[in-house]
Amino acid sequence: MKFSCSKKDFTEALQVVSKAASNKQQMPILSGIYLKADNYSLELQATDYELGFIVKIQANVESPGQIVLSGRFLQEVVRKLPTEQVIFSFDKEENIAHIQSGQANFTLLSMNASEFPIIHHFEGDLEFAMENDVLQDLVKKTVFSCSTDETRPVFTGCYMEVDNDTITMAATNTHRLSVKSITLDLPIGAIKIIIPAKSLNELLHIMNPDNPTTVHITCSHNRISFSFDNIYMTSRLIEGAFPDYKKVIPNDFSTKVTVDTDLFSAAIDRVSLISRSNEYNIIRLSFTQGQIHISSNNPDIGKAEETVPASVEGPDVNIAFNAKYVTDVFKNIQTNECVLYLQQSLRPMSVRENNNDTFLYVVTPVRTAH
Amino acid sequence: MKFSCSKKDFTEALQVVSKAASNKQQMPILSGIYLKADNYSLELQATDYELGFIVKIQANVESPGQIVLSGRFLQEVVRKLPTEQVIFSFDKEENIAHIQSGQANFTLLSMNASEFPIIHHFEGDLEFAMENDVLQDLVKKTVFSCSTDETRPVFTGCYMEVDNDTITMAATNTHRLSVKSITLDLPIGAIKIIIPAKSLNELLHIMNPDNPTTVHITCSHNRISFSFDNIYMTSRLIEGAFPDYKKVIPNDFSTKVTVDTDLFSAAIDRVSLISRSNEYNIIRLSFTQGQIHISSNNPDIGKAEETVPASVEGPDVNIAFNAKYVTDVFKNIQTNECVLYLQQSLRPMSVRENNNDTFLYVVTPVRTAH
Repeated sequence: MKFSCSKKDFTEALQVVSKAASNKQQMPILSGIYLKADNYSLELQATDYELGFIVKIQANVESPGQIVLSGRFLQEVVRKLPTEQVIFSFDKEENIAHIQSGQANFTLLSMNASEFPIIHHFEGDLEFAMENDVLQDLVKKTVFSCSTDETRPVFTGCYMEVDNDTITMAATNTHRLSVKSITLDLPIGAIKIIIPAKSLNELLHIMNPDNPTTVHITCSHNRISFSFDNIYMTSRLIEGAFPDYKKVIPNDFSTKVTVDTDLFSAAIDRVSLISRSNEYNIIRLSFTQGQIHISSNNPDIGKAEETVPASVEGPDVNIAFNAKYVTDVFKNIQTNECVLYLQQSLRPMSVRENNNDTFLYVVTPVRTAH
Repeated sequence: MKFSCSKKDFTEALQVVSKAASNKQQMPILSGIYLKADNYSLELQATDYELGFIVKIQANVESPGQIVLSGRFLQEVVRKLPTEQVIFSFDKEENIAHIQSGQANFTLLSMNASEFPIIHHFEGDLEFAMENDVLQDLVKKTVFSCSTDETRPVFTGCYMEVDNDTITMAATNTHRLSVKSITLDLPIGAIKIIIPAKSLNELLHIMNPDNPTTVHITCSHNRISFSFDNIYMTSRLIEGAFPDYKKVIPNDFSTKVTVDTDLFSAAIDRVSLISRSNEYNIIRLSFTQGQIHISSNNPDIGKAEETVPASVEGPDVNIAFNAKYVTDVFKNIQTNECVLYLQQSLRPMSVRENNNDTFLYVVTPVRTAH
């Protein structure tokens, strides 16, 4: 096995695949990165069985072959090489990889390539494609609502429902719910799956929205893959039935509030400084004619209150929330104004982008003493 | 007590003083920041008894007074205020501070100001001044060599010796030594003190070398203060006798090596990737005609080696070091070339900036099996 390639390409590919390399002591092979040189290309793979990456880069392959090396050291060594040209060779008898760049020479002990669980592209029940900025929006607006409590796995992922030409993604931790939908140009079939939040967060990290590209998605009942540019990412799915989230979406409201997103978001952020160290992190919202009054109270620290101008249509409402559940959503609202729908102090509040009904956020209030 | 001031000035002052606010549970008052409004100014103080800061900013004082507030919350609240104008008032009867900015209102419970150990400017045995860039250079080139082992306090600080018109700073962890000296325009007397590395590192953080200013320094036998712009910093000194570091400075050499600082530094950094996870973190340097060969070996990972061109005058030397002790010094060398002085494989190596004898670094080699 011998090839040469660009340091920049090699470094970028290692950055992507290493996100799936595991540090679990029980399975040392999963901390490795699999390299396969063949036909003018170098393929890199890493997987922790949940998540897997295949990245291909151009390479001048003198003799083909495959090897598994410690992900951590390979990544650090390649990133620090002194020149753009990397010459890589593997001496099978010595079981040692040689990496040369300029005056620098590294040898790295190899792992047993036959133990590595090689990832294969899989055939799915459903295949479709979308632009990366559309996919990013779909994921970003929902994944933050997932639970991190591993004892209830279905809530640690985003539910994706494909129905003809509509894709809906939903996520909830049972206290708040995000739902975002998009419409495709063509009907593509139907499927209902739950994708782990961890995998979707890694997808967000490696997608660059400044570089427009098309993402090809393949789903089966237990796997999903995302393929774009030189990257193939595959993730297992979460088994189980996602609850009927539509039940918790309020279907009527008495008070509709339109407010400047940034003003409201900054005020909540400030007021919650005081509640944050409190166990329940509670902020109170009071909607009255022309304004929202936001307040928090922490007996050990002090109080905070602020008033934000808003268009309030309907009766006054006094309501309290976990501050985090209210601040989180505004980081993902892209319109200058947002709209809040309320009914009573113990009924959920809905949040929407102004003039855009493809995104919905529902948050349950907290019951407070006064 | 009532004053108004600029959010920017207040935020910057809090950033500085909060570095001395302590989080020790035993003394809650030390987590507080003392505010004193008087005569068109607001004075802020914080101290953990070791290190203390006084920062003064302009304020419109309506009624003078003093208060102590939780440093953590005060800093976070002021930083997030919505407008540049901050109105601060203290209601003595309620024992509550009010902070108002735009539509935002905060109240913070105050701490007992009479418990706060107020810092006073002190009269020293020796007073002198230097430009901040000169002081920064003096500290930066030495403080990194200090020990972090609190069981031997004298090595956790920088020794400063003032002798007429010369100031010499030295630091050692017994394995490596930094010495930097500067010459003043006028003789200023004599003193020998040890300044805690922690205090000097905070001084480096708050000094901005892009903004030239004069630093006034006052020393006594147990305290030092640094005063510049609107900042007064005071630190206790470390008691004890600093060892005679001049004894370990080699007074002869057989081999003199001149090498490009960046090339050598980058090569050592790369080669030490392999040794870093090793207990002793050892790199080997082999000086021969026209070059330095750098290598490391880690039985669990692999090997690294690189050759850097260098002017080598004198006999060949093979020597091994703790990689960290060699890489650290190059971050603080400002000349394009540096000079290494060697004798034998078990004798210390000296490092100097080329054509500048005011800085000296001495590092002890490690004894290796081969």
